[in-house]
Amino acid sequence: MTGAIVQDAPATGETTNRNNKYVYFFAEGKADGHGQMKDELGGKGAGLAEMTNAGLPVPPGFTISTRACRLYFDNNSTLPDSLEQEVREAVARLEQVTGQKLGSPENPLLVSVRSGAKFSMPGMMDTVLNLGLNDETVKTLAAKTSNPRFAYDCYRRFIQMFGNVVLEIPKGDFDEIFEGVKKKKKVHLDTDLTAEDLQAVIAGYKKLVQKKTGKPFPQDGHEQLVMARNAVFRSWYNPRAAHYRRMNNISESLGTAVNVQTMVFGNLGNTSGTGVGFTRNPSTGEKEFYGEFLMNAQGEDVVAGIRTPVPIAELEKEMPAVYNQLRETTTRLEQHYKDVQDFEFTIQEGKLFMLQTRNGKRTGKAAVKVAVDMVEEGLITKAEALQRVEPAQLDQWLHPVLDEKQGLKVIAKGLPASPGAAVGHIVFTADEAVKQGKKGPVILVRAETVPDDIHGMEAAAGILTARGGMTSHAAVVGRGMGKCCVVGCTSITVDEKNKRMLVDGKAMKEGEWISLDGSTGRVFLGKAHTVDPDPTSGVFAKFMSWADEVRRLGVRANADIPRDAQVARRFGAQGIGLCRTEHMFFAADRLPHVQAMIMAETEKDRRKSLAKLLPMQRADFAGLFRAMEGLPVIIRLLDPPLHEFLPKREELMVEVALLKQKSPRSPKVKEKEKILARVEQLHELNPMLGLRGCRLGITYPEITEMQARAIFEAAVKVTNEGKKVIPEIMVPLVGSRQELALQKQIVDRVATEVFEKAGTKVTYLVGTMIEVPRAALVANEIAAEAEFFSFGTNDLTQTTFGFSRDDSGKFLEPYVNQGILQQDPFATLDRSGVGALVRMATEKGREARPGLEVGICGEHGGDPSSVEFCHQVGLDYVSCSPYRVPIARLAAAQAVLTESAGEKGRTL
Amino acid sequence: MTGAIVQDAPATGETTNRNNKYVYFFAEGKADGHGQMKDELGGKGAGLAEMTNAGLPVPPGFTISTRACRLYFDNNSTLPDSLEQEVREAVARLEQVTGQKLGSPENPLLVSVRSGAKFSMPGMMDTVLNLGLNDETVKTLAAKTSNPRFAYDCYRRFIQMFGNVVLEIPKGDFDEIFEGVKKKKKVHLDTDLTAEDLQAVIAGYKKLVQKKTGKPFPQDGHEQLVMARNAVFRSWYNPRAAHYRRMNNISESLGTAVNVQTMVFGNLGNTSGTGVGFTRNPSTGEKEFYGEFLMNAQGEDVVAGIRTPVPIAELEKEMPAVYNQLRETTTRLEQHYKDVQDFEFTIQEGKLFMLQTRNGKRTGKAAVKVAVDMVEEGLITKAEALQRVEPAQLDQWLHPVLDEKQGLKVIAKGLPASPGAAVGHIVFTADEAVKQGKKGPVILVRAETVPDDIHGMEAAAGILTARGGMTSHAAVVGRGMGKCCVVGCTSITVDEKNKRMLVDGKAMKEGEWISLDGSTGRVFLGKAHTVDPDPTSGVFAKFMSWADEVRRLGVRANADIPRDAQVARRFGAQGIGLCRTEHMFFAADRLPHVQAMIMAETEKDRRKSLAKLLPMQRADFAGLFRAMEGLPVIIRLLDPPLHEFLPKREELMVEVALLKQKSPRSPKVKEKEKILARVEQLHELNPMLGLRGCRLGITYPEITEMQARAIFEAAVKVTNEGKKVIPEIMVPLVGSRQELALQKQIVDRVATEVFEKAGTKVTYLVGTMIEVPRAALVANEIAAEAEFFSFGTNDLTQTTFGFSRDDSGKFLEPYVNQGILQQDPFATLDRSGVGALVRMATEKGREARPGLEVGICGEHGGDPSSVEFCHQVGLDYVSCSPYRVPIARLAAAQAVLTESAGEKGRTL
Repeated sequence: MTGAIVQDAPATGETTNRNNKYVYFFAEGKADGHGQMKDELGGKGAGLAEMTNAGLPVPPGFTISTRACRLYFDNNSTLPDSLEQEVREAVARLEQVTGQKLGSPENPLLVSVRSGAKFSMPGMMDTVLNLGLNDETVKTLAAKTSNPRFAYDCYRRFIQMFGNVVLEIPKGDFDEIFEGVKKKKKVHLDTDLTAEDLQAVIAGYKKLVQKKTGKPFPQDGHEQLVMARNAVFRSWYNPRAAHYRRMNNISESLGTAVNVQTMVFGNLGNTSGTGVGFTRNPSTGEKEFYGEFLMNAQGEDVVAGIRTPVPIAELEKEMPAVYNQLRETTTRLEQHYKDVQDFEFTIQEGKLFMLQTRNGKRTGKAAVKVAVDMVEEGLITKAEALQRVEPAQLDQWLHPVLDEKQGLKVIAKGLPASPGAAVGHIVFTADEAVKQGKKGPVILVRAETVPDDIHGMEAAAGILTARGGMTSHAAVVGRGMGKCCVVGCTSITVDEKNKRMLVDGKAMKEGEWISLDGSTGRVFLGKAHTVDPDPTSGVFAKFMSWADEVRRLGVRANADIPRDAQVARRFGAQGIGLCRTEHMFFAADRLPHVQAMIMAETEKDRRKSLAKLLPMQRADFAGLFRAMEGLPVIIRLLDPPLHEFLPKREELMVEVALLKQKSPRSPKVKEKEKILARVEQLHELNPMLGLRGCRLGITYPEITEMQARAIFEAAVKVTNEGKKVIPEIMVPLVGSRQELALQKQIVDRVATEVFEKAGTKVTYLVGTMIEVPRAALVANEIAAEAEFFSFGTNDLTQTTFGFSRDDSGKFLEPYVNQGILQQDPFATLDRSGVGALVRMATEKGREARPGLEVGICGEHGGDPSSVEFCHQVGLDYVSCSPYRVPIARLAAAQAVLTESAGEKGRTL
Repeated sequence: MTGAIVQDAPATGETTNRNNKYVYFFAEGKADGHGQMKDELGGKGAGLAEMTNAGLPVPPGFTISTRACRLYFDNNSTLPDSLEQEVREAVARLEQVTGQKLGSPENPLLVSVRSGAKFSMPGMMDTVLNLGLNDETVKTLAAKTSNPRFAYDCYRRFIQMFGNVVLEIPKGDFDEIFEGVKKKKKVHLDTDLTAEDLQAVIAGYKKLVQKKTGKPFPQDGHEQLVMARNAVFRSWYNPRAAHYRRMNNISESLGTAVNVQTMVFGNLGNTSGTGVGFTRNPSTGEKEFYGEFLMNAQGEDVVAGIRTPVPIAELEKEMPAVYNQLRETTTRLEQHYKDVQDFEFTIQEGKLFMLQTRNGKRTGKAAVKVAVDMVEEGLITKAEALQRVEPAQLDQWLHPVLDEKQGLKVIAKGLPASPGAAVGHIVFTADEAVKQGKKGPVILVRAETVPDDIHGMEAAAGILTARGGMTSHAAVVGRGMGKCCVVGCTSITVDEKNKRMLVDGKAMKEGEWISLDGSTGRVFLGKAHTVDPDPTSGVFAKFMSWADEVRRLGVRANADIPRDAQVARRFGAQGIGLCRTEHMFFAADRLPHVQAMIMAETEKDRRKSLAKLLPMQRADFAGLFRAMEGLPVIIRLLDPPLHEFLPKREELMVEVALLKQKSPRSPKVKEKEKILARVEQLHELNPMLGLRGCRLGITYPEITEMQARAIFEAAVKVTNEGKKVIPEIMVPLVGSRQELALQKQIVDRVATEVFEKAGTKVTYLVGTMIEVPRAALVANEIAAEAEFFSFGTNDLTQTTFGFSRDDSGKFLEPYVNQGILQQDPFATLDRSGVGALVRMATEKGREARPGLEVGICGEHGGDPSSVEFCHQVGLDYVSCSPYRVPIARLAAAQAVLTESAGEKGRTL
């Protein structure tokens, strides 16, 4: 059920077609196929078969299977003769059932030809309606319906649709002819055209077809059918569909089925009509019959928006019998499928036909509500309920969301880095965000954010960056703060200096209103309303408690400050899996001391600055320990390269050069040059692979010492307040046993000193991140020292692929688009590469130290597919940003259910 | 034998001491131990036992084993009682054999107490001579020798040595007293002091000991012995010894043995003397009796340099019988050990004593000469000969070397990045190197080199950089060019602007002479002479041919241009394992086109510039193919990030800022800003993990296309000249199958086009680098596309460790010094981490494609220990810089010999 898994080629059991059957007939209460055959028949075809078998009123027809589609592409865009024969036999059978004949002027059979893949891809592929009409049969239709206008309208629509879909003539060419006739007749509405006018349109259309294709419009029904069918097959590869598949991880190898079905007409007069509906409200999940319809209309009239559809309740008044039949039918369908049904129906001269039913798409809010309701109605089990909600959908319960009804203009689209909605005035610097943020909500817009921007990000309602990917600084920090964030919005150019940004060439200035939708990446012009859902509501809490009953994986949160820890705990976190101490270093009251520490030339001077940081760090940790009373708190020692705390090298270089050119003797030159000299010393070509992580603590042991002291003094303090404290100290970027051993020695020594002095002992663990490949490869050696492992899969992904997450945006998107990668490995854990290392390290680590605590604290900890993998590998917990905790809890439960379904499968 | 392997703890067989014996006696033609017991007795102890057993005149004594040393440290710096008892028994036995008694005034036993580890560590640990002397025994010695001056000189030397080594009193304190007496007596030479004067010195020394230790100088011989023995044990850990071990990869866990041996005196008059010698010339390898001696002297007199020793030939005249005995003895020793012997002897009153013998250290030139001679003398087998030469020593046959006799001043020391000697004027920029290089030899001195410097590096005689490690740009390029190069010389500060450098605070200007020794990393002040050895000499060629008979691994070379390829072929390369095409891009006639290509905004413009590069690349490849006729040539597609070809971002930023401040309206501002904009676009935070390797070819397929076209057109051309061409095209930085598949498609398509047009077909392979961990983890998938693998272990080491090779200098040195890493993983392949990936990828690759060609082209391809690993893993070849080819050939042969020795060991 987790959306991030590639929706892959059909399972073997179903593809093995024993009798070489490609075409599945359905009519008169009996279908060749059934509802479980989505792989073979597509979702729509399986639904039609199922409905037919259930005795529901379905227009008869047949489904050409997805296998035929694959065969079509494998076979040089043709079908083998035997299959063509099978199709012709199905047509003959349909003619027999209906008593009509394709292309026959006496009693013509008219059909629709529709795509229908395994997974619903609404509107992405092509459809041809009214197939079977030609210059002769149109007359029959006119006579039989006593409605020439209707018949000629059907025919001109057919030519237009066929011409566009099958013959690939641009829509505009047809519109031109149509508008020409309207102009000539001086009418305004399509419906004002008479049957004669439409015949003129048809003549124009046919001339267009002759001109564009060199051939007359095909009159033979069978020829029409073959051409339309092949066009529907081909539409599997149109760019729209390809894009949709990529977005939804649907495998390209599936192909689409084609459904050929007898036409029914909702536009045969005032006892005819057409409509769509849901068995429950897809937006809220409320149990209410939900939908709309139009009398005397075809489906496309509803879509075209020329006439406004009427709420379905109205149907009860107009045609009570049909209404009751529809309610009864759809209720049966919901009971049958045990899920909300999204259905289409047509009424032809008082008779109800069901054209389609499928499980209804719904919002995250509705998904949870429906799942819980259905359990309470006894319709599904709790396990089924848990599998009915995409974990990512839970987001909608946690963040304020945009009120979509407003219809604001979308001016740009980036990556949905951190969900929720944000509305505010544009600002371009962190300082300005703090300043303006006091007066009203602001959106911080940056080319990219840097650690220096933290205060501005905190002050802003939302963050928008032109560069960076899903794990860029802005994205990670945004998610950590639970703050709406859109990144990598490449169509925006930020001109910080002139306090403006260019969006598609149009300038927007500081102070203008924009709105962000962090769940879709959309950027809106103007001020949107937001809606603030209640994450502690009864339904949500109940649903999550079911997940907790099922899951084996623990869920912790990545949180650096007490406030985040509290949020995480409220969302169900069972501890802190990662506290990044460096985030504490960037605070305004600390940074000067951190910088002084870095500028110090001797250990003694370094220790002086560290001594000033000690009480602040101690207070930070005490706060965290209090917030997480009774739960484990993993604190990572200082990780980033030191130059991150100093001004940027290139900016300093420019500053010094300008100063020197202008006033070479200014004392400021010397001062700046001194800073620049240190920055130069610390400068690295590839800081991600440089002096950071435990390499810092080994080079400057006094930093580790100070941090260990702060942790243990805080632990003692909070313990003495009567609260249980479980500190776990994590050494970052370890690649060999000896690194960890040296850092552990310091930590243990400081612990002994602090505990002896205080007369209080606190039990603690010392462990390590596994975040470079070597650590995984020698995990058995490292486990001899480490009391726990935590996979830093962000860094591990960087080094395993050799992808810098700060820079990979440039090539990762084309990589995903060209199918080189199935997904962004920074968002979803790469199972075959990075995952192999995770598995190896877990096994080797536990071999050396049975019972070793193993978790993950990379961004993947909040991604459902990655959580499933962590479950499979046997990790003890995942840790993610606070707002992702519920997602991880559900994903962990689903992993158990998927696993046991697989086991059951194997048992049978 | 390969020096880079860690010389590790003793083999199990030898450490298992069955009868719990710690002390090994030797006297009168019979020793408890023997020559094979180096693990237990150390090199010196094993040699003494062996010589005793061989009936040679060795002063009797005993060896306290290395196990006792380890026990001493494990046991809180004491020995257990049982072991002390064993030592006392050995002393008693020695007293019995000599008829003397330790500390006895009647017939005192005097002994030396010397260190002796498994591997020779000359001068690194401590020694005490004349032990057993005290206020009484000195009188006996004076009487017995009738030489009071000699006796008191022995005693004062003993107190001084014991005081310094055992009691840790600074040497200077003793010297002060000694000089005080000399001054008082107004004498200039030590030898001018009388016995009485020396007694005054002794009195002063004893007072010093009382003052410094609070106790009188120990008079008891047994107490002296225990104290001296423990001090020798402790000297295992002195900083000098620790440093030597690290330099020579000797394991710290070995410990040292202690040899207690009866003193013999070479200073008992004119029939006494002492000397050292070699059975063959250790510098040239010539078979000549080689050494020096001094009559009436002790060993330290030779070392002290007060008297000039006499060539050993003189001894024949002075004491022909002794000379003949010495020649006969040492010849027997050489026959016995089957290797050049480095021996020490003492003549006491006409009687020859052998004090030590060991295999003599020798130069690379001598090593080869001796090995070949000994095979021809029938003394050793070819296999033994191959194991007698350290592969790295072969360097001395390949590069001009410094004439060491000159005695120039060493002003700095860096890393020996590329061997050989270089002498020249200092220059600080590449352009200056080219300009000045035309007038005379120059040394290019840079903070670090960049690809832009290539022309200057080529023009220079040698390269010296202040920053960078063994695989920095300067080092790699230097080795590639076979050019002497010293890098990471941190005591130098380069002040490019003022055309000077600071060496320990002293400034040196452009134009001054310096000399580099690329084999040791030393930098000399002034102009050294160099010696140019002949690498094609008969002895060398013969020796290498033996290596080729034995080895299984192929050896190829990394070479980018025909000249390098020719050199490589002369050195025995069996193909090109890596041609880096980007090096061709930096040439002055190409760079403008490369830059235009990068600045191009459309594919069309890019193709225009590429079209200009095509004929140049084609000519490059044709040259390579001709040079390597009949041998495979692996050409790697463009690899480095594009910004490497553009000016540096920060320099442009400064330039633009200065221009704007000065003349904002200058047209130059616009022009520079345009370049800066593109540089900004290409800017990456971690370029090593960015848009490079095949990511370039995937983003800009037209680059791959142009390169493939150049390769195939060149291949066709050279084939048509009647030469066999074997091109192998290598796609860099692949991490997944699809990347390679996409690039391979382009290459194959271009090949077909070129071959069809030319009517000539050339067989070629398409393969990939394995240089990111993921490639190794999914090697089976990649092998489905790849026709060969080549491990890029430089990059693979970077990503496996998460170490940037450009930046790791800052922490790698402390890492090695603190024992976190045994060696620089960029110099010697890390077997447990990177090696595990190499092994995994090889196995997985061959599983998917049996017979897959697998090689290595990282810098490790020329490192003997890494070559051994490649042999063990079963690679097909190693590829290294041309000047390392002979080293790799020998290392590959040694790997076979080590392996079959191991197998023989298992069989027995």
